[in-house]
Amino acid sequence: MAPQPVIRSKQAEKTINGNQTQVVCTEFSNYIFIVLTQYGKIGTLVSITPDTRSGDISVPMYTSKVLLGKDEPLTHVYAKNVATFVSQESGNRPILLGLSLKDNSAETMKTVKDMIKSCQVW
Amino acid sequence: MAPQPVIRSKQAEKTINGNQTQVVCTEFSNYIFIVLTQYGKIGTLVSITPDTRSGDISVPMYTSKVLLGKDEPLTHVYAKNVATFVSQESGNRPILLGLSLKDNSAETMKTVKDMIKSCQVW
Repeated sequence: MAPQPVIRSKQAEKTINGNQTQVVCTEFSNYIFIVLTQYGKIGTLVSITPDTRSGDISVPMYTSKVLLGKDEPLTHVYAKNVATFVSQESGNRPILLGLSLKDNSAETMKTVKDMIKSCQVW
Repeated sequence: MAPQPVIRSKQAEKTINGNQTQVVCTEFSNYIFIVLTQYGKIGTLVSITPDTRSGDISVPMYTSKVLLGKDEPLTHVYAKNVATFVSQESGNRPILLGLSLKDNSAETMKTVKDMIKSCQVW
């Protein structure tokens, strides 16, 4: 029998500019599921998928799609910015990202990325 | 300051009819996120939302929507069957359900529901 698969999940919490921020990362075989929240919500749910072409060794482009919640241009920019490095580190796996932040500043984004790194499940 | 929110998550594993089965339940304030998998995948992602009308004390109807994966009639039936009791127990909260089962038999469904009950986060 194959070794028993376990679904790995890690969490981090931090206060950023006065906002309590939670990060949850869970590894599934086809997606890495990441929730970034300052409201305790899943929030806007976005899939970020690399457009891989066989034989192409360059950095892939990413397609983002809002599955739940408001579909705003900034959401796509933010989602790709946050998810790209995880996808690249995990062998170009697709990311499923839940986003509900009060504060979308560059400082918050940087801290949130560090929190994601501390929750590495890939 | 309000008490620090924590995102609660529970997992269960069991072999059903020879298939290793994982259940992950995570509580967000706006959704209960449940993954049922025999492949380690998120699989088909379905939102199940109660159609609540104010002043209506009867059991609500549910609307299911496939967000990711194949949109098949049986998926909606299965998703509603699995998610309805969780939603009802949690004060009619919407459910976000990831489904990737090899075996959709009634016996598996019953066992899976018991596994969900053992992962109660609501």
